[in-house]
This record gives sequence, structure tokens and C-alpha cells, in this order.
Amino acid sequence: MQITFTGTAGAGGVPRYGCECAACVRARQQPEYQRRPCSALVETDQVRLLLDAGLMDIHDRFPAGSLNAIVLTHFHADHVQGLFHLRWGKGAQLPVFCPPDPEGCADLYKNSGILDFRQLEAFRPFEIGDLKIVPLPLNHSKITYGYAIETVSGQRFAYLTDTVGLPESTEQFLKSWGAFSLALDCSYSPQATPPVNHNDFNLAMDIITSVAPRHAWLTHLSHQVDCWRLETDYQLVTSATWAADGMIVRL
Amino acid sequence: MQITFTGTAGAGGVPRYGCECAACVRARQQPEYQRRPCSALVETDQVRLLLDAGLMDIHDRFPAGSLNAIVLTHFHADHVQGLFHLRWGKGAQLPVFCPPDPEGCADLYKNSGILDFRQLEAFRPFEIGDLKIVPLPLNHSKITYGYAIETVSGQRFAYLTDTVGLPESTEQFLKSWGAFSLALDCSYSPQATPPVNHNDFNLAMDIITSVAPRHAWLTHLSHQVDCWRLETDYQLVTSATWAADGMIVRL
Repeated sequence: MQITFTGTAGAGGVPRYGCECAACVRARQQPEYQRRPCSALVETDQVRLLLDAGLMDIHDRFPAGSLNAIVLTHFHADHVQGLFHLRWGKGAQLPVFCPPDPEGCADLYKNSGILDFRQLEAFRPFEIGDLKIVPLPLNHSKITYGYAIETVSGQRFAYLTDTVGLPESTEQFLKSWGAFSLALDCSYSPQATPPVNHNDFNLAMDIITSVAPRHAWLTHLSHQVDCWRLETDYQLVTSATWAADGMIVRL
Repeated sequence: MQITFTGTAGAGGVPRYGCECAACVRARQQPEYQRRPCSALVETDQVRLLLDAGLMDIHDRFPAGSLNAIVLTHFHADHVQGLFHLRWGKGAQLPVFCPPDPEGCADLYKNSGILDFRQLEAFRPFEIGDLKIVPLPLNHSKITYGYAIETVSGQRFAYLTDTVGLPESTEQFLKSWGAFSLALDCSYSPQATPPVNHNDFNLAMDIITSVAPRHAWLTHLSHQVDCWRLETDYQLVTSATWAADGMIVRL
């Protein structure tokens, strides 16, 4: 299984529009520091699926027929906005697996075009090619799933963005899943009071300690986290890595 | 007054995702034939305003502080989708003039960020710098305004996209407005039966005959219109021009 971090930002991205903080200025000068909407491409020999569709140019990056499916964590705009254009495509329907959100986003359900929305159920596994995927409930302001993704050869990858802490049931699932790698929400630097909707660095580290992945990539990063890293030169433990746009990892 | 046609497509654009028609194949090979979401930049010595915000990269094209306002025709996603990212910017509020749509699009009203939505009233003029603008009702599936834009020196430009025919009141306004130039919806080639929501070429020509602009640019063009043009080599009358992305006109 190969994972490409196609986007590693929270809403607003890096650089944030109009922001002159050190992280945003650097990202304008050095594009390798830019962060686009949080998303990841998962590939095996058999399938190619995109986790979340907030990239504005998915229609350019992924020509028709190049994706087997899109899997959505939730329906906030920064995770689905690329679908507004893609849906008007021609030809084969594209499966879009998603949480059972009654609203969706804007008129995506009403005018779905080539998108074939398939609502999932928490903890009920589904398959895409040689991947078995289990939806895991997360703690967010809109119904949101993380995904436990497993190959037939037993490689395991959990994608948990847009959460503050973890529901007990999801934590228990991960503890008994077997060895796995993890991509995890770390939207903010360590905060004095616990944040809402997203992990700060402290909560992310607590989760990593609790579910003990083989390796963790921190993603859904804000300009605020990048500023904190610039100011403190904080060094992560060796079992964790800051994700970056375009980073490719093979499990 | 200078007008830049920043986008000249209807929903789906040209090329349309996955489409292999002659117009879409050509647009992939020759980027000058691509059409992005319908929008226009209006500039005078004093102001710079963007008509519609469907371009996915308005945050890159227009750095913070470079626009005085955005003016929306309506809240369909292909006319507002660029706002989902822009809103999370930092700094000064950006006025966004719009029809009094109670819904807006997705959570744009709820989480408006730097966007300062200002609802307009049909036929009640408002001013942005040295421009006087009158909202004109159009015929569409969601409340939609065209705009009659006038400089202090009497240059007049009407922007009427996303309409099928014209309401009587709007037609009468234009007939008594004085000499003006026009950008007009022409989404489809001549159809055997009248279309819904958008003009075909026949309706566009009827409107031009009725309101008699000095010059008209046809916009909100689909791949279907471009195919028809390729097949028929149709020559427009001299008082009308097919708009193209990036085309600049000075009135």
C-alpha cells in the first residue's frame, strides 16, 4: 500500500489568504511549504482511491477513469469542494463512499452527476478492490468517519483527520486491530485549554500513546502549527513525522 | 471601464471531465480553448471588482487587498465555490454583494469569515467606488441577478449570465438605459424546443435584437456550443463576439 499526502492543511490552508505570519510568508516564497486541503491518495496494485475531495483541482490531477473511488471523511466544504466541478463529468459513475450525513454539502446529493454516493455504517467493513475498509466514528462538529484500511497481505493504515480526541469505541478498535500506521489530525500547537473539533499537539500525542501505531504522520496542519514549529524548532519523537504535501510513504 | 472575461463556461467547463467530444479534446490539447467558471473582472481607475466567484483559484489570482468587492449573480456552486477557501483569510473584510437568497450555498452565511455579505434589492442602485450598479432580476432556477454597471462618465455594461430569456421588467430597464454593451448567457446551440434555466443561441439572439446593445459578448458557453461552432463554422453578426477566457475589452 502506498500513501501520498496530496494535502495536509486544515481549512484555510498554508499560506492562509492575507496572512503575513512567518509560516505563511515562507509558504508563499517556497512552494514546498504550502499545504492544500487535507486529503490522501491510497494505492495498491489493484486500486487507487482518494481520501477526501477538498483539492480544487482533482479534475485535473485525476483524469476520468484514474480513480476507483473517493472516500469522504465528512461533508465540510474543505473536504468536498473539488466535487462541485467533478460531478458534471461525462461517462462512468464514480463511487463516493461517505458517512450517512443527511445534508451532504450544498446540492451535491440533489445534483450528483457522475457521483454515486454510498452511505456507510460505523464499524461495518466494505471493500474496494483488494482493500478492506472499516469506518471509525470521530469527534467532530459534523458526522465524521476515520478509516481503518487493510490490504489482503495485512498492511494496515488508519486515517483519522478532523477529530478532537477519539470516541472510546474507535480507540478500542485500534487497540485490538494489530500493527498499523496512522495519519492523525494535529491542527494546533499545544493549547492551554483543550480545543474543539480538532486535536492540538497534546491530544494528538495522547492518542498516539494510547493506540500505539508503528508510525504516525501528523496532518491537517494549520499555519499556527507551522509557526509554532518555526519558533520552537520542536523535534518529534522518532515514531512520528510531520506530513507534507506530496509526501509519499510505502507501508 | 475594462472587462476581463476571467471565465466563460457554464457548470462543467470546457473540457468537461471525461468528455471526448471535439471541443473537449481540443481544449485539452490547446489550453487557449479551455473555459473556466463564468466570471468577469471589472476595473476602473478607482475600483476592481469580480463578478462571481466560481474560479477555484481566486485566492491565488487576487491577493488580499487587490479586490474592492465581489458581486454575485447567484449562489449556485459554480458561481461561488472559490469563496469556500477565500473566506478563511485574515485581515480586512471583503464586501460580497449578492441577491437576497435565504439559503446561500452550504455554510457560507454561517461561517462567513472575511466575507461581508450584503444582500441587494432588485432595481435599487448601489455604488462601489466610481461605479453605479443596478441589480436586474433574471430567469433562473435560483434567485439570480444580472447587473447594469455604469461609470460616472456614462460607460455602461450589462452582465446577464444564468438566465433563460429575460423578465419583462429587466428587458424594459435595458431598453431605456441608454447605449450599453452586454455580456449574455448563451449556454446552448439553437435548440428545437426552448431550454430551461439558460439561453440557447436563439434566445440569446432574440434578446440582443430586443435590447439592442452596442456590442454583445456571448458567454456561459458549454462544450456543446463549442462543438456546434466547430461543426458549422457559424459566423456571428458583427455586433456580437464569442467570449473566451482571458479576453479583455475596454469600453
